[in-house]
Amino acid sequence: MAVKKGDFVRLEFTGRVKETGEVFDTTIEDVAKEAGLKIKKVFGPVPVIVGGGHLIKGLDEAVLGMEEGEEKHIELEPEEAFGKRDPNLVRLIPMIEFKKQGIKPRVGMSITLEGHEGRIQSIDGGRVRVDFNHELAGKTLEYDIKVKEIIKDDTEKVKSMIQLYYPLDKINLDKIQVEIDDGTVKIYMDELSRFDRRPYMDVTLSRFRIARDIWENMDIKKVEFVDVFTKKEEKED
Amino acid sequence: MAVKKGDFVRLEFTGRVKETGEVFDTTIEDVAKEAGLKIKKVFGPVPVIVGGGHLIKGLDEAVLGMEEGEEKHIELEPEEAFGKRDPNLVRLIPMIEFKKQGIKPRVGMSITLEGHEGRIQSIDGGRVRVDFNHELAGKTLEYDIKVKEIIKDDTEKVKSMIQLYYPLDKINLDKIQVEIDDGTVKIYMDELSRFDRRPYMDVTLSRFRIARDIWENMDIKKVEFVDVFTKKEEKED
Repeated sequence: MAVKKGDFVRLEFTGRVKETGEVFDTTIEDVAKEAGLKIKKVFGPVPVIVGGGHLIKGLDEAVLGMEEGEEKHIELEPEEAFGKRDPNLVRLIPMIEFKKQGIKPRVGMSITLEGHEGRIQSIDGGRVRVDFNHELAGKTLEYDIKVKEIIKDDTEKVKSMIQLYYPLDKINLDKIQVEIDDGTVKIYMDELSRFDRRPYMDVTLSRFRIARDIWENMDIKKVEFVDVFTKKEEKED
Repeated sequence: MAVKKGDFVRLEFTGRVKETGEVFDTTIEDVAKEAGLKIKKVFGPVPVIVGGGHLIKGLDEAVLGMEEGEEKHIELEPEEAFGKRDPNLVRLIPMIEFKKQGIKPRVGMSITLEGHEGRIQSIDGGRVRVDFNHELAGKTLEYDIKVKEIIKDDTEKVKSMIQLYYPLDKINLDKIQVEIDDGTVKIYMDELSRFDRRPYMDVTLSRFRIARDIWENMDIKKVEFVDVFTKKEEKED
């Protein structure tokens, strides 16, 4: 069965900048190591919903129609990837603004201004040139992709979205219980997840995203996250 | 009906040090203001389980046998309150230990050592005398207490424990849904509580305490905290 919009799949991919061959992202640990890629993440096929906004446009479209196990090499123009470079996003900022903040600008340094990340391109006397375009904007990209799995089981679909949004490295999907009944999903997380040090509201945001992806792509109206405390089995630490 | 062990009650009280008449705790806002008491808390009758370890010994015992609405004035010897003073809890600490931590000790200052809070009594040359006894240890206390309510309804009992352990000032008990069925309590918290900025594990500890108090004092084996996300009604912010 070919992949169609709304399918839950597990995807393996490696992305390279066409011009330089530089690997900028991959789901495969060995590839990351070999490329000297410095991103902190859990490797392995990534669960996504096709057409669900989890992937860049070109990648999302490339997956459509692929079969389970199929591999593909694609090339994406900037428009299908991280967009063209916008010259208006290159800004000259007076040096004095950096001094006010106690920052000593250096070429190549990343800075954040009003929530937008930019990189310092050059420093010329009293003016600092900062590029707020995405680092991959304007680049043609190459991807090797493989559809590792088309997830069919509803419980596994729910678990795949938990895997996508819960950033706990040690989360054990096998210890998560999922009950689906009459349009409602009840999720009983691994007990370890209760000892999450993140603020409760951050967990709420992850949960909302899981819930939204579920009800937009499955026949579900309600998602419940349940923390159960049971007499005698529970110990205080 | 007189109060007995295991009853859920709402209690009004004001505690004073007998010797000085100083108010050290009260549930009544006007009394706190008049006494110039600097404690940040929500005023109003406090929900407790009699014999549940929420109150100091003497207070817990004094409430037994009282009728709803009854008021009482009691005097508690240190043994029934915060204990006798233990001279072994007064320690001499070399000044150099404070210097290592970059602390400049002053008489009356509170410090925490290995999780125990102490107050600096005196500074003599290279030695700092710190008293790790409870501030009210060794004091005879006077309490005015009033049993405002004996909680009879099971749902209200559950809510009273949420009120006790959830430190969100703005928690709205009316917006909490409680379902009790066949030895299981399901608690649907006010949606605002999902935006709690505390770490999830701190919320878990509060929830565990609520659950424990419930199953130790009610005919309940299981307590579930449920966060519900419903299609369309839910908005991301």
